[in-house]
Amino acid sequence: MPSFRSNLHSVFRGRQVLITGGLGFIGSNLARRLVRYGSKVTLVDSLIPEYGGNLRNLAGLTGRVHVNISDVRDRHSLPVFVRDQDFLFNLAGQTSHMDSMTDPETDLEINARAQLSILEACRRHNPRIRVVFASTRQLYGRPDALPVSESHPLRPVDVNGINKLAGEHYHLLYHRNYGIRSTILRLTNTIGPRMRIKDARQTFVGVWIRAVLEGKPFDVWGGEQRRDFTFVDDCVDAMLLAAARGEAEGGVFNLGGPPPVTLKELAELLIACNGGGEYCVKAFPAERRKIDIGDFYADWNLIRSTLGWRPQTSLKSALSRTLDFYRKELPHYV
Amino acid sequence: MPSFRSNLHSVFRGRQVLITGGLGFIGSNLARRLVRYGSKVTLVDSLIPEYGGNLRNLAGLTGRVHVNISDVRDRHSLPVFVRDQDFLFNLAGQTSHMDSMTDPETDLEINARAQLSILEACRRHNPRIRVVFASTRQLYGRPDALPVSESHPLRPVDVNGINKLAGEHYHLLYHRNYGIRSTILRLTNTIGPRMRIKDARQTFVGVWIRAVLEGKPFDVWGGEQRRDFTFVDDCVDAMLLAAARGEAEGGVFNLGGPPPVTLKELAELLIACNGGGEYCVKAFPAERRKIDIGDFYADWNLIRSTLGWRPQTSLKSALSRTLDFYRKELPHYV
Repeated sequence: MPSFRSNLHSVFRGRQVLITGGLGFIGSNLARRLVRYGSKVTLVDSLIPEYGGNLRNLAGLTGRVHVNISDVRDRHSLPVFVRDQDFLFNLAGQTSHMDSMTDPETDLEINARAQLSILEACRRHNPRIRVVFASTRQLYGRPDALPVSESHPLRPVDVNGINKLAGEHYHLLYHRNYGIRSTILRLTNTIGPRMRIKDARQTFVGVWIRAVLEGKPFDVWGGEQRRDFTFVDDCVDAMLLAAARGEAEGGVFNLGGPPPVTLKELAELLIACNGGGEYCVKAFPAERRKIDIGDFYADWNLIRSTLGWRPQTSLKSALSRTLDFYRKELPHYV
Repeated sequence: MPSFRSNLHSVFRGRQVLITGGLGFIGSNLARRLVRYGSKVTLVDSLIPEYGGNLRNLAGLTGRVHVNISDVRDRHSLPVFVRDQDFLFNLAGQTSHMDSMTDPETDLEINARAQLSILEACRRHNPRIRVVFASTRQLYGRPDALPVSESHPLRPVDVNGINKLAGEHYHLLYHRNYGIRSTILRLTNTIGPRMRIKDARQTFVGVWIRAVLEGKPFDVWGGEQRRDFTFVDDCVDAMLLAAARGEAEGGVFNLGGPPPVTLKELAELLIACNGGGEYCVKAFPAERRKIDIGDFYADWNLIRSTLGWRPQTSLKSALSRTLDFYRKELPHYV
C-alpha cells in the first residue's frame, strides 16, 4: 500500500460524501472505496443510457450506499443533496466528444449550466463543503509540447472541451470569490473495471476490451498516437487525496499514468494480456480527425509534489484486471 | 477619413446585415453607419431594461432599418433571421460583471448558450454568412504585463468572463470545424453617443457622463487604475473591417484606443471637456475588489498590422462628442 493511502481511511470514516455521476465508472469505484473506509455515501445519477451510469456498478453494495436517480440539470433537487455533506465528488458529465458536436446544447447544459447550479447550491446551502471536480485533458487541445503540464495553454478542440473549461472556471471562481473549497483534477484516459464498454462514448479502450472478450477484431484509428492511461484505482486515490488535503484547495492538477504508449502498442499489450485477439489499423475518418488531438500525455509532477500521488498500477496490470472483471461481468455491460 | 474606411462603402452597399443587440450602444451606431453605406439592416434586440437596448437609439432611422424585438435565447426564431443574411454582427450580450455574479445562469444563457444556438442556426441555415463576435478584454483577467496582447493567458475573474470565453471558443470551433467565417473582437471600454448612462451596467463612464450633465458629483472607485477607451466610431470601423476582410476570418483581435489614462485623469478630462463638474475618490468596496482587474490596456498591434485599423479619435474628442450628444438627448437615456 502506498504511504499516501494510509491516512485516507481516517479522513473519510463516518463522513458524509456525495458523488454526482455516482453510478458511473469512476463514481462507482470511488463509492466502493469510500464504503470500505466507512463513509456515508450518497450517489446521484441520471442513468441516461448513453452515459456511464449502470446499476450493476453497485453489485454487492446494496443497502450500503444511498442511491438517488436524478439529473444534475434538475437545479431544484440540488440543495437537498448538498446540505449536510462533508465532501462532494462532482463527476456527473457528458463525456462523448462526438455527441458534444452533434448535440452541443445538451453538453452545455450538463457540463456548464448544471455546474453553476451545483456551485450555487453549495454557496447557499453548504459553503464549507469540500469539492473535487473531474475535468479532462481535452481542455489542452493539441499539445505544443509533451508531456503537457497544467500551465499549457487551454485550447479546447470540441464543444465538450469548451464546456468543461467553463465548468472548471466556475469551480475556481467560486473558490476565489466565495471560499468554496474546490479542487480540479484533469483526467486523462481512465481504464478499469466498470468502464463503459458498450461503445466508445467514454473511451475507445472500452470497445477494444469488449471486442477481444467477444473474440472479434477491433479497430485502431491511426495507431501511432501516443497516449497515457490511468487505472481507476489510481484515479480514486487522486480524488480522495485531493479532497483530504488542504494544500489542494483552489488547485488544478493533471492525472497521468505509467509511461505513454502508442495505440498500436496498447492494442498489442491488450491482446497479450488476453492471450489472443485481433485488430485492424484504419485511417482516421475526416469527422474525427477534426477534433483529434494527436499525441497526448500528461505531466503529473504537480500532484506528485503537492499531494504525493503516484500511479501504482502498471498498464499491463490495469488491462489484466479490467479483462478479469469483464470476463465475469460482460453480460451486464453490453 | 482614414484610408481603411474608403473601401467599406462598396463592401456593404446593398448587402443584408443582421445585428443582434442592434438597439444597443454599439449595435445602433453600427446600424447607422451601415444605413449610410446602403446596407439592408435587420436589428434583433430584446429591449430588456437592464441591458443596452433603447428605441431612441434609432431616432432618425425610422423606416430605414428592420427592427425585430426578440431575444437571442429564443432559439426557434433564429433560423428565420439568419437565413439570407450576408453579415451577422453578433453583439447581443449581458455585459454587467456584477449581474453575472448575482445571476450567473442568466449570464450563461445569453453569453454562452444563445451563442451556440446562433452558430447552430448559421451552420444549418446559412453556412456562408460572415460573423463578427463582440468579445471583451475581461477574458484576460488581471494582466501579467501591459499592454495585453491576444496571446496573454485567459483567466476570467467573473462569471461574465467565463461565459464570454465559452462564446468565443464556440465561434472559433465553428470556424475550424464547419467553416463558419467568424472573427472575434475583444473590446475594451467603449464610449460614445448612445452608451448606457442610466447605471454602470455597461461601463462606469456612463454614470460619470450623466452626473456631470446633471450637475452632480460622481464617484471614482480607486482612481489609480490605468484603462484604455475606444470611441464607438472607431469600434464600428473595426467591426466593419473585420467583416469585410478575409484575412480576419478565424482571427481574434484586441481593440484599443489612444494612450491609457488613470481613472482620476479621465475624471479630470471629463470635467475639463464639460467645463465643470465634481467627483469623489472612494475606496473600492470588497464586493467589487474581488472581480476588479487592476490596470488594463490592450495591445492592438495585431488588428493594426492585419487590417490597418487605428483609433481615429482622441480621448478628449470622444468625451466631448459624447457630452454634446447627451446634452440634447439626456431625457431619453435616464
